[in-house]
Amino acid sequence: MARDTRVRWALEEASQPYGVRLVSFHALKEPAHVALHPFGQIPTYEEDELSLFETGSIVFHIAERYGRLLPDDANARARAITWIFAALNTVEPPILELATARIIEADKPWHKERMPLVEDRVRSRLKQLSARLGDADWLDGAFSAGDLMMVSVLLRLKSSGILNEFPNLAAYVARGEARAAYKRAFAAQLAINAGGPTAG
Amino acid sequence: MARDTRVRWALEEASQPYGVRLVSFHALKEPAHVALHPFGQIPTYEEDELSLFETGSIVFHIAERYGRLLPDDANARARAITWIFAALNTVEPPILELATARIIEADKPWHKERMPLVEDRVRSRLKQLSARLGDADWLDGAFSAGDLMMVSVLLRLKSSGILNEFPNLAAYVARGEARAAYKRAFAAQLAINAGGPTAG
Repeated sequence: MARDTRVRWALEEASQPYGVRLVSFHALKEPAHVALHPFGQIPTYEEDELSLFETGSIVFHIAERYGRLLPDDANARARAITWIFAALNTVEPPILELATARIIEADKPWHKERMPLVEDRVRSRLKQLSARLGDADWLDGAFSAGDLMMVSVLLRLKSSGILNEFPNLAAYVARGEARAAYKRAFAAQLAINAGGPTAG
Repeated sequence: MARDTRVRWALEEASQPYGVRLVSFHALKEPAHVALHPFGQIPTYEEDELSLFETGSIVFHIAERYGRLLPDDANARARAITWIFAALNTVEPPILELATARIIEADKPWHKERMPLVEDRVRSRLKQLSARLGDADWLDGAFSAGDLMMVSVLLRLKSSGILNEFPNLAAYVARGEARAAYKRAFAAQLAINAGGPTAG
């Protein structure tokens, strides 16, 4: 569930070859990595003289540079970009909070009593998203970088069971996972997690 | 501290005239507004046939359409966009969590014990941001939409005292507030809050 799957997926949708440089957990906070990513996280993206961080920015850059992930029509393009931001700034924050409550605050005395509150904040966002999606395949016309990001954000909920309370969102995520580009990205990720060959 | 200040500020930086349509708290969840904003929030943005939500997307659209808020150089532009995403997806989430802890969970039995934890998550982000900014005026060269968004996000902390623990960030926010465009946006916002004339 690392965020680099989002970048791999975008590169696969754009049919762009890429190389991977793995960063150890300890190296994340070292000056060489912090120079690339001021918040000491992954992924970062390097292309000639350009170096970027933030998955939203990297996916947008790939979409803008290689096409395929943003519509040509200016208004449709602006709406697809809106969904990238909605995924990251409106839907993901309560999901991040849920992850924090589950992992970092799991041993706190308030954990059990607080969890339903945090889960309900996620549900209230999903309810609104579910209403907007309705029975459409994607959020606004053809599959776009906005869908790529929204599906990626929702995937974080997969193990929680909450996603299945919204059948149209669960089906939406499944449509994303069924894309050939996603499958290639996920398989490549899995190979590394399984201890496959590493670069750098 | 409403998010529409961000949009006003961007429009002022771009020297674009705009009209304001206020939305009552009750109308936020009504179908007419939800059609414009699926999550029932403000602000929304309307321009000819285009309607957008999400401040990140609206500010980016204004920057892209009217110039002045994004550098011309392609790499510098991609880095400025990165800071928009960093502000919204990395720096704002712990600040939102702090606001939630302060307001929505203020009456919970765990409130007092949990607050330092939540504040420290904000501090750890600010520490990283402070290290990156150093003694520069803005995050990457000239003032950009990335700074506009980062300053706006940090402004949410103004009343907390946490910002003042990082003098270079406090000065950075003050530089943002000192811009003529910000002053015009803030004054216009204040006039409405004070019960001035309303449109729509």
